[in-house]
Amino acid sequence: MAKQVISTPVIRRLPRYYRFLGDLELEHVERISSRELAQRMGLSASQIRQDFNCFGGFGQQGYGYHVKELRTVIGNILGVSEQTGVILIGAGNLGKAIAAHVDFEQRGCKLIGIFDSDPLLAGTSTAGIPIMPMETLASFCQLHKPSVAVLCIPKDAAQALADELIAVGIGGFWNFSHFDLRIKDPNVIVENVHLGDSLMTLAYCMHHDVETAE
Amino acid sequence: MAKQVISTPVIRRLPRYYRFLGDLELEHVERISSRELAQRMGLSASQIRQDFNCFGGFGQQGYGYHVKELRTVIGNILGVSEQTGVILIGAGNLGKAIAAHVDFEQRGCKLIGIFDSDPLLAGTSTAGIPIMPMETLASFCQLHKPSVAVLCIPKDAAQALADELIAVGIGGFWNFSHFDLRIKDPNVIVENVHLGDSLMTLAYCMHHDVETAE
Repeated sequence: MAKQVISTPVIRRLPRYYRFLGDLELEHVERISSRELAQRMGLSASQIRQDFNCFGGFGQQGYGYHVKELRTVIGNILGVSEQTGVILIGAGNLGKAIAAHVDFEQRGCKLIGIFDSDPLLAGTSTAGIPIMPMETLASFCQLHKPSVAVLCIPKDAAQALADELIAVGIGGFWNFSHFDLRIKDPNVIVENVHLGDSLMTLAYCMHHDVETAE
Repeated sequence: MAKQVISTPVIRRLPRYYRFLGDLELEHVERISSRELAQRMGLSASQIRQDFNCFGGFGQQGYGYHVKELRTVIGNILGVSEQTGVILIGAGNLGKAIAAHVDFEQRGCKLIGIFDSDPLLAGTSTAGIPIMPMETLASFCQLHKPSVAVLCIPKDAAQALADELIAVGIGGFWNFSHFDLRIKDPNVIVENVHLGDSLMTLAYCMHHDVETAE
C-alpha cells in the first residue's frame, strides 16, 4: 500500500481493534457483529463499518466478522510480523520500565539495543537487552540499521539527539521526553507520548464534570 | 464551571497549550500571536482561536496573547493548584517509573500512597512514597480520601479492583493495564493509556508512508 488518505483517528483505532479482537479470541468468540463489537468498544456500529471500509471492508452484511480472520487481517495491516528494529535511548526509570513492560515483538517491533550516557550502566542489561554507551550509538546504527528510536531522555537533549539519529538512518521516534519533537523531514514519523498531558486531561475531567471519550 | 459542552479534542489540547506556554516562559517570551503559537504547535491559528473561545477567549485582536497570563489562566482551568489526591496500585517496573517520572504536583495532583500485593515490597518506598500492602487499601482510602487511582496492574486484575476502588470513593482512573476499563457509573472518569497502541500506530505510519498529526 502506497500513500493513503486514511485519517489519523482511524489509524489510531486500528491497534485498539486489534487488541479487542485479541480479547475476543481469548474468550473463544468466533464471530461478532459490528453492533456487538461497537458496544464493547464504546463506538457506534456505523463508525466501525466506516473504519473498516477505509481498508476495503472486512465483513459480510448480516453475517458479522470472523474474529480470528479479522484480527489476522488487521495485524497484517499493522505489520505485527515485521520485526522493525528499535533502539531505546535513556535507561532511567522510565526507559527500563518501557523496555520491560512493552511487548515490542507482539507489536511488530524488536528492541535490539539500549543506550545510556551513564558509564556505570554500560555493560549491564535490562529486560535482557544490553545497555551500551552513547559513544557506540552511531556505529551500532550503521551496523544493525534500526528504524525506530525510543527517546526516554530529558527534553533538553531530545532535539539534538533526534537530529543525530536521523543522520544515522532512524526514521521514526517514540518520544517520551516531555517535548514535542520538531522534525523537518516529512518522511520521519514522530509519536509523542505525553504522560503528563494525559494526567492533566483526567484531572480536568474530574473537576469539570465532563465525560471523556476515546 | 458546571457541565460544559467542550469536545474531548479541545480538552486534550489544553495541557499541550499549557506545556508550550511554559516553554515560552522559560524562553522569556512575553507575548505571542495566535499565528506564531500555531506554527510552534503544528496547529492553525484559527484552531487556537476557536479552542480559546470555548473558554471565553484569552486575547485581544491584533495584540497577541500575554504568555504568562495565558498560562496562568489555562493552569487554573486545568486545576494545577488543586493537589488532587492520587494513589498508585502496582509497584512493578512501570508503576515505579510513573511514580518517579511523572511530576504529579506540577499537574494538580499529589501522589499520597502506593500499593502492591507483593509482601516483600511492603514497608519500602519508591520516589519517596511508601509502598503499602493491598490489605490496607480500603482503610487508607477511607482515611485519606484520594480521588484518583493509577492502575499499573495486570489486566486480569484491573476490572475487579476498579469496582472495589469506586466503592471506597475513587472517582477517576489513570489506567495503564492494557485493558479498557468499563465503568457503568457516568460520574467516574477513566483515562486509558495504551502504550502498545501508541507503538503500533508509529509502526503503521512508518510502513505506510502516511503523515501523523496530533
